[in-house]
Amino acid sequence: MMRINNNSKPGTHYDASSNRQQRTTLFFSVHDKVGALDECLRALKKAGVSMTRIESRPSKSVDPSYDFFVDIDSRSRDVVIRVVDGIKQVGVVRDVRIISDLDDETAVADAVPWFPRKISDLDTFAEKVLEMGEELSSDHPGAKDPEYRRRRLEIVQKAKEYRTGQPLPHIEYTEQERETWRQVYTRLREMYPRYACREFLHVFPLLEQNCNYGPDVIPQIEDISRFLKDCTGFTLRPVMGLLTPRDFLNSLAFRVFHSTQYIRHHSDPYYTPEPDCCHELLGHVPLFADPNFAELAQEIGLASLGASDADIEKLATIFWFTAEFGLCREGADIRAYGAGLLSSFGELEYALTEKPERRSFDPSMTSTQTYPITQYQPIYFVADSFRDATAKLREFNTTMKRPFQVRYNPYTQSVEVLDSKDKVQHFARSIRNEMQLLANALEQL
Amino acid sequence: MMRINNNSKPGTHYDASSNRQQRTTLFFSVHDKVGALDECLRALKKAGVSMTRIESRPSKSVDPSYDFFVDIDSRSRDVVIRVVDGIKQVGVVRDVRIISDLDDETAVADAVPWFPRKISDLDTFAEKVLEMGEELSSDHPGAKDPEYRRRRLEIVQKAKEYRTGQPLPHIEYTEQERETWRQVYTRLREMYPRYACREFLHVFPLLEQNCNYGPDVIPQIEDISRFLKDCTGFTLRPVMGLLTPRDFLNSLAFRVFHSTQYIRHHSDPYYTPEPDCCHELLGHVPLFADPNFAELAQEIGLASLGASDADIEKLATIFWFTAEFGLCREGADIRAYGAGLLSSFGELEYALTEKPERRSFDPSMTSTQTYPITQYQPIYFVADSFRDATAKLREFNTTMKRPFQVRYNPYTQSVEVLDSKDKVQHFARSIRNEMQLLANALEQL
Amino acid sequence: MMRINNNSKPGTHYDASSNRQQRTTLFFSVHDKVGALDECLRALKKAGVSMTRIESRPSKSVDPSYDFFVDIDSRSRDVVIRVVDGIKQVGVVRDVRIISDLDDETAVADAVPWFPRKISDLDTFAEKVLEMGEELSSDHPGAKDPEYRRRRLEIVQKAKEYRTGQPLPHIEYTEQERETWRQVYTRLREMYPRYACREFLHVFPLLEQNCNYGPDVIPQIEDISRFLKDCTGFTLRPVMGLLTPRDFLNSLAFRVFHSTQYIRHHSDPYYTPEPDCCHELLGHVPLFADPNFAELAQEIGLASLGASDADIEKLATIFWFTAEFGLCREGADIRAYGAGLLSSFGELEYALTEKPERRSFDPSMTSTQTYPITQYQPIYFVADSFRDATAKLREFNTTMKRPFQVRYNPYTQSVEVLDSKDKVQHFARSIRNEMQLLANALEQL
Amino acid sequence: MMRINNNSKPGTHYDASSNRQQRTTLFFSVHDKVGALDECLRALKKAGVSMTRIESRPSKSVDPSYDFFVDIDSRSRDVVIRVVDGIKQVGVVRDVRIISDLDDETAVADAVPWFPRKISDLDTFAEKVLEMGEELSSDHPGAKDPEYRRRRLEIVQKAKEYRTGQPLPHIEYTEQERETWRQVYTRLREMYPRYACREFLHVFPLLEQNCNYGPDVIPQIEDISRFLKDCTGFTLRPVMGLLTPRDFLNSLAFRVFHSTQYIRHHSDPYYTPEPDCCHELLGHVPLFADPNFAELAQEIGLASLGASDADIEKLATIFWFTAEFGLCREGADIRAYGAGLLSSFGELEYALTEKPERRSFDPSMTSTQTYPITQYQPIYFVADSFRDATAKLREFNTTMKRPFQVRYNPYTQSVEVLDSKDKVQHFARSIRNEMQLLANALEQL
Repeated sequence: MMRINNNSKPGTHYDASSNRQQRTTLFFSVHDKVGALDECLRALKKAGVSMTRIESRPSKSVDPSYDFFVDIDSRSRDVVIRVVDGIKQVGVVRDVRIISDLDDETAVADAVPWFPRKISDLDTFAEKVLEMGEELSSDHPGAKDPEYRRRRLEIVQKAKEYRTGQPLPHIEYTEQERETWRQVYTRLREMYPRYACREFLHVFPLLEQNCNYGPDVIPQIEDISRFLKDCTGFTLRPVMGLLTPRDFLNSLAFRVFHSTQYIRHHSDPYYTPEPDCCHELLGHVPLFADPNFAELAQEIGLASLGASDADIEKLATIFWFTAEFGLCREGADIRAYGAGLLSSFGELEYALTEKPERRSFDPSMTSTQTYPITQYQPIYFVADSFRDATAKLREFNTTMKRPFQVRYNPYTQSVEVLDSKDKVQHFARSIRNEMQLLANALEQL
Repeated sequence: MMRINNNSKPGTHYDASSNRQQRTTLFFSVHDKVGALDECLRALKKAGVSMTRIESRPSKSVDPSYDFFVDIDSRSRDVVIRVVDGIKQVGVVRDVRIISDLDDETAVADAVPWFPRKISDLDTFAEKVLEMGEELSSDHPGAKDPEYRRRRLEIVQKAKEYRTGQPLPHIEYTEQERETWRQVYTRLREMYPRYACREFLHVFPLLEQNCNYGPDVIPQIEDISRFLKDCTGFTLRPVMGLLTPRDFLNSLAFRVFHSTQYIRHHSDPYYTPEPDCCHELLGHVPLFADPNFAELAQEIGLASLGASDADIEKLATIFWFTAEFGLCREGADIRAYGAGLLSSFGELEYALTEKPERRSFDPSMTSTQTYPITQYQPIYFVADSFRDATAKLREFNTTMKRPFQVRYNPYTQSVEVLDSKDKVQHFARSIRNEMQLLANALEQL
Repeated sequence: MMRINNNSKPGTHYDASSNRQQRTTLFFSVHDKVGALDECLRALKKAGVSMTRIESRPSKSVDPSYDFFVDIDSRSRDVVIRVVDGIKQVGVVRDVRIISDLDDETAVADAVPWFPRKISDLDTFAEKVLEMGEELSSDHPGAKDPEYRRRRLEIVQKAKEYRTGQPLPHIEYTEQERETWRQVYTRLREMYPRYACREFLHVFPLLEQNCNYGPDVIPQIEDISRFLKDCTGFTLRPVMGLLTPRDFLNSLAFRVFHSTQYIRHHSDPYYTPEPDCCHELLGHVPLFADPNFAELAQEIGLASLGASDADIEKLATIFWFTAEFGLCREGADIRAYGAGLLSSFGELEYALTEKPERRSFDPSMTSTQTYPITQYQPIYFVADSFRDATAKLREFNTTMKRPFQVRYNPYTQSVEVLDSKDKVQHFARSIRNEMQLLANALEQL
Repeated sequence: MMRINNNSKPGTHYDASSNRQQRTTLFFSVHDKVGALDECLRALKKAGVSMTRIESRPSKSVDPSYDFFVDIDSRSRDVVIRVVDGIKQVGVVRDVRIISDLDDETAVADAVPWFPRKISDLDTFAEKVLEMGEELSSDHPGAKDPEYRRRRLEIVQKAKEYRTGQPLPHIEYTEQERETWRQVYTRLREMYPRYACREFLHVFPLLEQNCNYGPDVIPQIEDISRFLKDCTGFTLRPVMGLLTPRDFLNSLAFRVFHSTQYIRHHSDPYYTPEPDCCHELLGHVPLFADPNFAELAQEIGLASLGASDADIEKLATIFWFTAEFGLCREGADIRAYGAGLLSSFGELEYALTEKPERRSFDPSMTSTQTYPITQYQPIYFVADSFRDATAKLREFNTTMKRPFQVRYNPYTQSVEVLDSKDKVQHFARSIRNEMQLLANALEQL
């Protein structure tokens, strides 16, 4: 769940004052020689700050050496510099990088923004939400209902505590919550055959059969995540509320989608100022089971890793006009695939009338289109197909100025930056092997 | 853990009488039209056998359609045929395949042997062990120690119950068990710098630092599995005892290694007639953290999927002479990388003397070499490097007669058989995208 | 040389009445069995038409069989059908295709337009020119100069008789012709450093050094062709006058450029209503020595093979706005690379002022832009680079509806249509081998 | 034609005293700045040696710069060094390489042996033959026939004068020569259906139909070369006599085969101590029309470029046991494809009896096998298929120690050494484009 109904421009006014995590990740490599690991551990201890994680791994870039990932409990630039200097004095250390954003951002203005390298790095997003994580804004229908607020806090607390590898939180929904779901579900379910795209309609019955989708039960994200994993490798993570666009998009690179688990206020089942489980499970989930949509979403995610703020804004806008409000062509017909449409019966109907303007999806245009967030969209972008949209997006991404290419390794669930000769060599060998397999498969077809 | 100390030829005398699972998996596809899923469920119920699993998924091969995976509680050919006939009568069903081996194997002699398609299919191996699962052979040092037998049963029971996705069993080892470990660990640890290959020595200190390797504690496979996942995507699964070579090798295709958790009898710390946690954790684990060895192991696994019995025997022999007893060249030096050597100080020393014969690893020769299993090997095969061995193995695999090519999808943790035009097309597009990424990365290098 | 100064829309009003060649090419395959070739030759003789060429070759598509290429001296639909029927009666014949356009085009409306498969097929364009081949239009400055017309006829006669594999015609230019060249050359040469693109300026001194470019001598296309062959594999062919856009573009697929050898009338050295050797040698030739431009030109050519008339028109328009009137970016600067600019000092100067409109090259827009042909262009399209333009063009080409993909084989100088499994397999193996080579090269870098 | 019946070890005792060409080729690159070309030409003139060729080309490796190829009429180390020093003093010069072998070879012992980069470099082989170029050895049946020797001299004179790009020499054969051909042709033609491999038999009738193969006429290499060019891109070049193995193999990299045009002495039509046109046209030519054999031959050629003397000897031995004396499997049958067999009815019959030993083709074994050259072979190597042999050869070639990879560019008919980042980048882009084309072709299949 990315912030989608906020007037601020994406990526800017984000108040991290209170609950932003005070953490900096350091990465460094050491030569593989006798005692290298020990020497390094000693240096870290000497630095005199609290280290919350130390992981050592075989280096993937230069053989033979080791990589260290160290989290320190500080985001103060002075402290970090002191630790870095300490580490540098160890003879075997080759390369120290600060891979977190520091408080004093201007001081490292040229640096590539921090981005997660491993799926467990997404844990750092857990407490870093823009708003509505624990508090509700005053225009929220549940803002004055203490019972609703208590319940919501109970649910987001589980998201706050969730860490990679743990079972996803199971929520026992109340009768009142289920009633809200029933009303939303029933009305939308009936509309889908006329409005939703082919891929959505193909998957929906499978969600009914395998994940308990239906009017009576609010599905559990654990069941959905397992199903999606089988289909495309996407998985769900619980989230407290709105992430920054950067964090939200970054997680898509790992085929991870952040999903809220609470539901809108029962007083107005057809309205919510923020994403809730109706939006996530009805709007977003079905498409993540489609291989071509999954590829599109991950492609946006990969492009966002280490991207400049300006590029993040463009990518967030592309996400808005595709995954949230996208239309697509089906022969002579136009259908909806965006979650913002598929979870809102009002706009779903409106979007497919002649009233709004329709343009062909073209990333260079789409990415700079402004849009309102509190009313129906005046402009929608129409994709020819998810594959076509992905191809266009790839082409568009090459125009971004990021000085490196990234590749996702689904075996290790980590991001590889293709910035050294040996990584590129390894990648080339891997493609050669796949090409060999393809040639063999063609031989036998 | 594959059977490695048994006089029988691999893949033959395997008594499945008692604890073999009575299960057949059916797979079929249905057209995507209104009511297809419902109609199918009704047909399954009518067939009148107990179904233990029904999963429906979007089909990956032909759009748009659905795939069903149904497990029925019978391996009787008559029953299965009856169910298949019932399913075929449903109009929307396109293709029904029996993907398990039936009791009456001669009747489907031409068929490709069953193999796991999804990582959760490995659950079917849980109760299917050759021997020593729950019972001990008479020559086992612990055969007459009722306390040892009780403890062993306690541990394998956890393996028997383990299913994909669950946390790996945590074993609280006794002081006596830890003492056995200490003796083995101490003696071997001291030998490694002189005998073990570079990759082993590179990883070992990381296991000490990240996974509690050391003389005092028997490491938990949960910690090791998490570490390996980060390094190469390999994971561990608990196992009761010896798997058939086919099952054992098949699991390597998923980068899954079956590991025992019990330990040898304390009366003779330097001897065991069967693999135990000393063999697995000291011999096998370190190499699975090396990307090139991981690729070699998976390549053996992929070749074993649906292979003929004769080819399984060849692949098991290759596994024997590589992962169990392999030597490799390091400049002018020869070092050990096989787990059978690295967990046995006697043979480790012997193997690197001039006594045994050494030959260059060459899959076509190696795969047909006979070997003793109760004494030191008279012949060892020497690899130039893991990459070279993998290249040779790939070349060798093309000489096998399997009528299809398989590809592992690490996102969905499933095996794709590249037997249709659309799968090959999809694969070609994926290679094209990677090639684009490689070209971009080279541009920026 | 493609028609570039004609009011008619490309690809439409083309009067083939007089000098169009009366030729039809038949292609058929026969099974490889004893007597197949003889039987077929006999059938061809029985058909009772005059055959001007019979070539038999090993089939590249299905092993083992033979391909026949037969030219018959008729374009009458009735005659052709009779011959085809005759051939079909031979038992061994598998597949007969008429690969020429017949007079009665409506009768084969669905058919893919004829296109050259081998470089020698370009010989069929020799006598097939739109206008000004042997005659001059009334507005030509030389139209009333009988001596100029005689000389021009003498030169085009050599082009008319030229066939693939022969030495290119050597023209002994007269003093008057050389004087005309001198005036054009001197004036343009002086302007190039300020206006021409980097690639043009890089190559030009090489033409001076290797091909006798200079004010005093009109270079011979034989020398130029040999130079271009070394640089990019492009070669020149003499041509009588304006080819149809289809023929002209088709030849680019073979990296062949059709060049006139006559020169404009001496009375007005700075004006010509038609391409002449000044336009070809100064405007076009230098860019064909640049690998990236060569790739762009061939890409247009490959897309034109068998394209619909509508697509030919689009591609001709793209050629117009690139190879003839293209501008490109060089840092903050804009430079010219189109031959129509680089051979006309008036428009070259004008194009780089602020007067005309400039748009970014975008094939889907560019291909449908109308343009005047008798005055300076009001709109120019600016490419970021030849590589970028080629990438965009490739993307654009995939939107064309041609039901097959073609690949140029530079070894055999022939076009392969990738329409059968074995051709695609062969191609895949070839890519696999190249990928292997790339991986090895990266290893050694 | 490579030396095949000489007792000396390949690549060693080669007397270059008399007719070895006195030539050294220098290559250097200069920066592209104003006056670079002129400055360089001036320096060359100052060096004071006779330069027989100066070619300047756009550099393919580093943009933007120029490459110079200069031939000087000297192989004296002192002279060459002086010229090199002169060139180095020019400011713009970046890199000077001597790409010929000097007389004093020990002085540049580490250097990579010279090899042709462009097809026209093969011209340097024209006068460089081992023996029997102009003279005949005493055991030659024609050694004492002055008329035969005169005729032979007449024919090889044309080969001596031939240069790349010229029409191939046409020989008017005498009645006596045609009678010798008739006897050889008639006897062998009759044997082929029983002994020759499938590919040979498939092509042979095409040679009869397209190239005048038959008992009455000795075919002209011009016709054959044109036919082969259409089939596989191979072309023929006339040769005076035996080339060194290195030169002969090097030319195969360009898909060029050196063919003699004279014929054996009429006194003994079934014997010749040296290759003649019967051997070339009947033995070698048919296979060069087969795409898979052509690839195998070129692969040997590419591996030979710049190879060490030891590797040249191995490759020459592989050529011997494949192209000259190779057998291949056809189902249960064994057939001949080596030219030494297919042009000698005695050995052709013998080779397919049970008398000689047969081994499977395996480059590492085959390349070191010794063999007699004046009697029937005791051992033959049997290939599974040309494709399989090529795959094995590629694998074998990676074991050679050459510090660079080469790629043949059939557009420019030149060899590219993949030793710089930009060449590898260019190659990667080219593969990406081909991969895109393959994916599109698969889409449409």
